[in-house]
Amino acid sequence: MVYLTRQEHFNAAHKLFNPKWSKERNEEVFGLCANENWHGHNYDLYVTVKGEPDADTGFLYDVKKLSQLVKQHVIDKLDHKNLNMDVDFMKDKMCSTENLAIAIWQQLAPHLPVEVQLHSIKLYETPRIYVEYFG
Amino acid sequence: MVYLTRQEHFNAAHKLFNPKWSKERNEEVFGLCANENWHGHNYDLYVTVKGEPDADTGFLYDVKKLSQLVKQHVIDKLDHKNLNMDVDFMKDKMCSTENLAIAIWQQLAPHLPVEVQLHSIKLYETPRIYVEYFG
Amino acid sequence: MVYLTRQEHFNAAHKLFNPKWSKERNEEVFGLCANENWHGHNYDLYVTVKGEPDADTGFLYDVKKLSQLVKQHVIDKLDHKNLNMDVDFMKDKMCSTENLAIAIWQQLAPHLPVEVQLHSIKLYETPRIYVEYFG
Amino acid sequence: MVYLTRQEHFNAAHKLFNPKWSKERNEEVFGLCANENWHGHNYDLYVTVKGEPDADTGFLYDVKKLSQLVKQHVIDKLDHKNLNMDVDFMKDKMCSTENLAIAIWQQLAPHLPVEVQLHSIKLYETPRIYVEYFG
Amino acid sequence: MVYLTRQEHFNAAHKLFNPKWSKERNEEVFGLCANENWHGHNYDLYVTVKGEPDADTGFLYDVKKLSQLVKQHVIDKLDHKNLNMDVDFMKDKMCSTENLAIAIWQQLAPHLPVEVQLHSIKLYETPRIYVEYFG
Amino acid sequence: MVYLTRQEHFNAAHKLFNPKWSKERNEEVFGLCANENWHGHNYDLYVTVKGEPDADTGFLYDVKKLSQLVKQHVIDKLDHKNLNMDVDFMKDKMCSTENLAIAIWQQLAPHLPVEVQLHSIKLYETPRIYVEYFG
Repeated sequence: MVYLTRQEHFNAAHKLFNPKWSKERNEEVFGLCANENWHGHNYDLYVTVKGEPDADTGFLYDVKKLSQLVKQHVIDKLDHKNLNMDVDFMKDKMCSTENLAIAIWQQLAPHLPVEVQLHSIKLYETPRIYVEYFG
Repeated sequence: MVYLTRQEHFNAAHKLFNPKWSKERNEEVFGLCANENWHGHNYDLYVTVKGEPDADTGFLYDVKKLSQLVKQHVIDKLDHKNLNMDVDFMKDKMCSTENLAIAIWQQLAPHLPVEVQLHSIKLYETPRIYVEYFG
Repeated sequence: MVYLTRQEHFNAAHKLFNPKWSKERNEEVFGLCANENWHGHNYDLYVTVKGEPDADTGFLYDVKKLSQLVKQHVIDKLDHKNLNMDVDFMKDKMCSTENLAIAIWQQLAPHLPVEVQLHSIKLYETPRIYVEYFG
Repeated sequence: MVYLTRQEHFNAAHKLFNPKWSKERNEEVFGLCANENWHGHNYDLYVTVKGEPDADTGFLYDVKKLSQLVKQHVIDKLDHKNLNMDVDFMKDKMCSTENLAIAIWQQLAPHLPVEVQLHSIKLYETPRIYVEYFG
Repeated sequence: MVYLTRQEHFNAAHKLFNPKWSKERNEEVFGLCANENWHGHNYDLYVTVKGEPDADTGFLYDVKKLSQLVKQHVIDKLDHKNLNMDVDFMKDKMCSTENLAIAIWQQLAPHLPVEVQLHSIKLYETPRIYVEYFG
Repeated sequence: MVYLTRQEHFNAAHKLFNPKWSKERNEEVFGLCANENWHGHNYDLYVTVKGEPDADTGFLYDVKKLSQLVKQHVIDKLDHKNLNMDVDFMKDKMCSTENLAIAIWQQLAPHLPVEVQLHSIKLYETPRIYVEYFG
């Protein structure tokens, strides 16, 4: 079994704000991330799939097709968007990196072909903070 | 003469939207960057100063003091902010990387001590796009 | 379960020198790393914790609090230090990257809150050499 | 148990071309990678070994010796070569990153000393595409 | 005046071989780079233009248009190619990074709009070797 | 004229300590960098030379020869050393990055061949702090 990873990226605005809490409680817990006018990030996304290479191509999966699947089901819905306002699958969720990584897995997994298994989603919010999810 | 550079970073939301134009014209010119609900970036900022090293310290300028000046006059005003809404010195300006780099120069230059000259502001909007301004 | 990683860094001097051996034996085994007057590195440290995201915050753990814990129990004791001379928990140990990674785990693990498990310590000695420890 | 990783690199030419297929079928499947006159990459290779640190050295394994083994059995056979034409252990194989990572494992594993286990081969074809193999 | 830079990349095969010299002389001068069966690189290309930002857009030049121009006149002719065999503007030239950077300038400069000046071409052959050309 | 840059690196210990000052004054000015037991860094060094490419080779200068010159005259004297104690050309100088960059220029410049001019020394002390010197 081999593991194949493709890096993609997207830029988005978000804020961390729990509507069940007061503004003060949100600022206490989330600090600058609670800024009501939003802030944003360049997110780096690493999608890893696993399986057996095909004898005729030497590919586990064509990395260009993997990139297209990620673009169609994930990047096009997140890039240059407001994660809290514009993204249907983040509605009513806290827009933390943790929740976003889980949601990206759920968006992508049903669309991979049967010969390929999704292994992990790794999502950088900044160059020094990232989350991994293995399903 | 030597040149000393310190890298800083900040996260911010913005959009590219000219209020003198229609929504259609904005989308035609700015594409996804015109999303009315904002998007955002991890900005990387490189501040370069120049001058003669001090005989007693070997320093052109104490890089921790440089970092504090940049933090006080630039980062604290931009980090986790909405560039269009929250930043007084970007009011009524297009929030392009070009204009932001020029504005950062104007914010910082008056506060450097006399023995140090500001040489350049280099600002990355994404890892593959950056602007430089030399005053 | 999700995994959250925070990168920190510190600068330190060290040497590789086994006091039970002759100077010649040390130079034979450790080469330039045995230089009696020390050398040093910019160490990059990746701390990974795992657990379930909290429903109210979306956080596995507040990454700023994680950073503060790492700073208090690890970075403040290592940064701008001599690993062989200044660090109580490296006393009488060889200051290899392997031993340093294990020691960092032992320093940090007791201080994490119960809802979070330490998953791994990844320590870069140079950009091309790193050690991982999983407890 | 600790894990020690050393990064190496090599530059090579290759093409993706299945000799059992027509030129048209190759171009359909492999696109630009099927260019008959070859293209090439700067490959980054991460070799990870695992085991127990030695009490006298603090080393799992001397990273300079690891680097020499990788150089002798892998890099010297791949660097500045044509993977399809010049490399005996890639003869009659598709020169995909997947197959190359597996072949590198097979080249290197027999030559590691008994106290060290090969854990993984991680091979970047470009900065945004990599393959991992764990044996 | 501001400076705007866009990074692009391409993968290509090449060799360093002077047809006026013997095989031995080529190997003596160019070493492994003279391998007759080619080798290759992931090239990173930084294109920098300079000028005044536009008052209505805040742009020196639309970076997406810059990227398209570079793609059309440079990347499409070099990516997944053999620099010695497939590229008309490198015919009868030594395929050094120096000559390639100069040739990229000559390809691109005539196609930039009048309000924008080409400032520099910076070309990485490997992560540790690059050439700059300023016209 | 083209500019060719080669990156090299070295690891070293140092401290910032002015022997004309009291320990208290040193700690006030240099903070943690004054630690009497030293600390250290992975230094990254970029050496840039300029000139005209040779017609027969396409090279401004053979980058392997440049690397050897830098190794012989700079890296071998700094790598795995204590900058304050082990390096003759830093004796009686403050070991700041500024002074080290200037000293590297002075070490290297006399040894370059006549057809090549030294253009700049760029020296990273950490990934976020660097100094440039142009002679």
